[in-house]
Amino acid sequence: MSARREARRFAPDRIRAPEAGVYPWELPLGAWPRPDGLTEFRVWAPGAGTIALRLAGGEAGSDGSRDLELEHVGHGIHETVAEAPPGSDYWFLVNGIELPDPSSRWQPAGLRGPSRVLDASTLPGAGPSFDPPSAEELVLYEMHVGTFTPQGTFEAAIPHLRELAEIGITAIEIMPVAEFPGHYGWGYDGVYISAAHSTYGGPHGLARLVQAAHEGGIAVILDVVYNHLGASGVTAMTAFGPYFTGKYETPWGKAINFDDADSDPVREWVIQSAIGWVRDFGIDGLRLDAIHAIFDSGAEHIVAAIARRVHELNERALVIAESGLNDPRVMRHPERGGYGCDAAWADDFHHALRVLLTGTRDGYYSEFGSVAQLAKAYHRPYVHDGGYSTFRRRRFGAPADDVAPTGFVVFSQNHDQVGNRAFGDRLPAHVRPLAAFSTLLAPFVPLLFQGEEYGEPAPFQFFSDHIDEKIAAATREGRRREFAAFEQFGREIPDPQSPTTFESSKLTRERDAKLARLYPELLAARRNLPGGDAHEIEFDEPGRWLRVRRGPFEIVSNFAGEPRRVACAGGRLVLATDEESYIKDGYVAMAPLSGALIE
Amino acid sequence: MSARREARRFAPDRIRAPEAGVYPWELPLGAWPRPDGLTEFRVWAPGAGTIALRLAGGEAGSDGSRDLELEHVGHGIHETVAEAPPGSDYWFLVNGIELPDPSSRWQPAGLRGPSRVLDASTLPGAGPSFDPPSAEELVLYEMHVGTFTPQGTFEAAIPHLRELAEIGITAIEIMPVAEFPGHYGWGYDGVYISAAHSTYGGPHGLARLVQAAHEGGIAVILDVVYNHLGASGVTAMTAFGPYFTGKYETPWGKAINFDDADSDPVREWVIQSAIGWVRDFGIDGLRLDAIHAIFDSGAEHIVAAIARRVHELNERALVIAESGLNDPRVMRHPERGGYGCDAAWADDFHHALRVLLTGTRDGYYSEFGSVAQLAKAYHRPYVHDGGYSTFRRRRFGAPADDVAPTGFVVFSQNHDQVGNRAFGDRLPAHVRPLAAFSTLLAPFVPLLFQGEEYGEPAPFQFFSDHIDEKIAAATREGRRREFAAFEQFGREIPDPQSPTTFESSKLTRERDAKLARLYPELLAARRNLPGGDAHEIEFDEPGRWLRVRRGPFEIVSNFAGEPRRVACAGGRLVLATDEESYIKDGYVAMAPLSGALIE
Repeated sequence: MSARREARRFAPDRIRAPEAGVYPWELPLGAWPRPDGLTEFRVWAPGAGTIALRLAGGEAGSDGSRDLELEHVGHGIHETVAEAPPGSDYWFLVNGIELPDPSSRWQPAGLRGPSRVLDASTLPGAGPSFDPPSAEELVLYEMHVGTFTPQGTFEAAIPHLRELAEIGITAIEIMPVAEFPGHYGWGYDGVYISAAHSTYGGPHGLARLVQAAHEGGIAVILDVVYNHLGASGVTAMTAFGPYFTGKYETPWGKAINFDDADSDPVREWVIQSAIGWVRDFGIDGLRLDAIHAIFDSGAEHIVAAIARRVHELNERALVIAESGLNDPRVMRHPERGGYGCDAAWADDFHHALRVLLTGTRDGYYSEFGSVAQLAKAYHRPYVHDGGYSTFRRRRFGAPADDVAPTGFVVFSQNHDQVGNRAFGDRLPAHVRPLAAFSTLLAPFVPLLFQGEEYGEPAPFQFFSDHIDEKIAAATREGRRREFAAFEQFGREIPDPQSPTTFESSKLTRERDAKLARLYPELLAARRNLPGGDAHEIEFDEPGRWLRVRRGPFEIVSNFAGEPRRVACAGGRLVLATDEESYIKDGYVAMAPLSGALIE
Repeated sequence: MSARREARRFAPDRIRAPEAGVYPWELPLGAWPRPDGLTEFRVWAPGAGTIALRLAGGEAGSDGSRDLELEHVGHGIHETVAEAPPGSDYWFLVNGIELPDPSSRWQPAGLRGPSRVLDASTLPGAGPSFDPPSAEELVLYEMHVGTFTPQGTFEAAIPHLRELAEIGITAIEIMPVAEFPGHYGWGYDGVYISAAHSTYGGPHGLARLVQAAHEGGIAVILDVVYNHLGASGVTAMTAFGPYFTGKYETPWGKAINFDDADSDPVREWVIQSAIGWVRDFGIDGLRLDAIHAIFDSGAEHIVAAIARRVHELNERALVIAESGLNDPRVMRHPERGGYGCDAAWADDFHHALRVLLTGTRDGYYSEFGSVAQLAKAYHRPYVHDGGYSTFRRRRFGAPADDVAPTGFVVFSQNHDQVGNRAFGDRLPAHVRPLAAFSTLLAPFVPLLFQGEEYGEPAPFQFFSDHIDEKIAAATREGRRREFAAFEQFGREIPDPQSPTTFESSKLTRERDAKLARLYPELLAARRNLPGGDAHEIEFDEPGRWLRVRRGPFEIVSNFAGEPRRVACAGGRLVLATDEESYIKDGYVAMAPLSGALIE
């Protein structure tokens, strides 16, 4: 045999994947009904000594259940095909213990109950017909399903969508719904990252909400937590395999294993969760919680991988990061070394605004307080873009001039900025009009927190319903310690585990009529503003006013506690948060803490 | 006062640095003689309850020393100006304890002795006259000063430089010299990152070596370790401030604080070390040790910051990373999200080559062994470029087609691949010619390990001279445990703390005359090869041969244990590692484990 005949040419692509085709973990994880009536089950469980599928309500077995063997197809992936029509309950039996499916899409009896087979193809809302808003049109509304209505369900939220659309809101952003412990909670302690919460109405409830939103012209963004799992689920997940790594720590518990040995199936478990929401539920985008606590030293950061896979599925789907890094790399294109997210939350805008409005200087607010900072934040909301942060005791952030203004989400209230205060109180009533004015007319994507659009009086407090008594006690104690200073003033910190705390955080829908009129006016005015960067930003530090020009419009804010006259070029008062405002002789006369839009 | 007069225009650059000018830690740290004869001292010590400067040999003080107060100029930076001419010994007195300067550039009595004032302006070799080799001309030679000569000093290395230049070596890469514990060691346990090791000849010795190298037309690259400090220095450094962080772990100890609170002065301490070597010693480039253990979640990774600052100082200075990430981002330009390093070590090339040469399959070698992998490595040396690594149990790396071949440093031997074997043995003699042939004719930057150029018979073993008995015992024990399997075969693992281990690792300079002739021939041939990508790479897996075309040249390797005839287009045998090779009828006839260069 001559060597010439044997020669193989090296081609760069040829030896890229030593194993041909698809890695086993890239197959669909979880329970997937097939057209032939059978259901495929697949789970990654390299840590399980023995593993089986237990079907409830079958014919064999003395307790009415059937146990089925799983086939190991490599890399710890176990699979089988079974007669288990949609609606069947199942467990994975790991070392003889019944555990829910890590990729469960339905936990009808909660965190400790069985998983249920979901036929996603029958869900409403999965159609591709909806035309989502553009980045410029996007107005987000953060909704917590449990407190948005007395019933606290997806279904109950539907009748309110019309009202939101009328105000000018174009997308609801739903706080996490992945199955979390108990009946109520903020949702950031979720365990089954692909299962819509049972007490909210489960997957069918979510799908109906999405369908109704789309019918009403509203997009749906879903908040997803991929930085940690709720402590209640750590033991169950660890029985399957190394879902966690000891390499890094998050403030909320063990870091998820995105770069250590056996991390590929964990990455895929998360990615399949992310794309499942978009593909099967018609979700228009994801809000990735706290990506600064998602650690990954690999060649493609998991956040970049999620953004890529979501965009491959639907190029119009949005990936919005909550990032505490002030790092424009999050929004940059992967070709420029970025993560490829469409936008990121920008806390600095909030902080700069809030301190001007309220004068509060606690904690991280201590380094804010100048009009110059808000002026800067109107250019790009990273007030910290490389300079020294006294709160963090280090230089922080990087300039983000290359990221379009629509790459930033800004707000004057959100679940954290309201709920993570000792008593969960919203912005004081007298600063709300100017807060809304400043946020909704900024060149960024605005986000409203549920109820702010009409001046909701109820607080949004921190509440949980931990089913594990140790975790409940730790949560309660942690909260008390965090806000110990307030107890000294004689007011007791709300107990997060008390049903009262949850109940008192529900929207009352008591309206401040004037404020409720202002929001639609502001959003209508916003639609007339030109997109892109603010054209001119001027301010007077001692006078505490700010004037931002966007095309022919001037957005003038008076943060002083007294009236101000501010020079303006325009002669028409389009809108003012205070009816006393008027234009005369090239000046706009403004009430304390008020805003005026001038053309 | 009218508001119009007060208005300030926001300009993006204006509010970038809330504090005007230079941060205190950006001033030169350490001891800096001034033209007026006084010396400036500056240290970052936010953790010190009290701090003073103690000058030895002064006039005041009963023990002949003078203690001087330091002025706190903000952010934990303390400074003073004192009569302390170059050559004066000094300590920082931290909470009453004498400690060396963290930015010391001279530790004449070692790790536990005083620091000494260095006047860098009087060092030889600091001139800018040397014209360093281009990336294409670069041929690196890894040198360990302690074992390169019997004396083990910078000075003693000088007479050998001529010989290296004659062979065709264009740069020496000196293993770490930062003051480390004891009299000898590999150097990766350094503590005073800016002080050239005392027993090697200190800063003046290093400067003379650089000067001599430049006179002989050889560039000097310095290996610097910024991922951890030797355990012997942790207590002393921690007395000054939070040089370490608990956020991350390295395999060798506490991670350096590059992104936690108070990290800016730590970053600057490292950066000033890096640029000091280049600016004051005429060093032509740095080799950054193990950057995969340098953790930094900030907006500019410290490795990118080092590369930027070094290149700002001297755009021709090289920054070469040792990176175990197989991530082309290391070499990409910062505009593309990269770290901006000039090159990185590429272990995969070594592994692919070594397994073909020796058949060894232990540990991480287990996933190598095919000619196809070496073929791939000749295109870009990342054999793992996104595919699954069975050793790491995860997908690993990313394609690096956009990085030029000169962005990779390849080798068939280096201090790790030789020294981190149980007995520190070099490649077996019978495979050395083909190893050299394969490495030196590759389109990448080749690196030789000292002695390989003439077939040095001495091993390079792991040796240390820890002054702390606990660390010594732990090092000894760790080594024994790592290679326990070998002891069972009746051969004792060398004791790293034994002087014999160090002594037996010194070059004997016993020459294999044939191999010593081959190296200059290969490097001369290399200079005729065209730069850039290999033009064609063909191989025969069962036949175990590889043929790489670079312009008119064919580089043919036979990894089989038997003779092979391999088709070739050229008719002239430029060079062969075995004299039996010949060309006939469009074939080259090759001996087992041999290489032939054909035109």
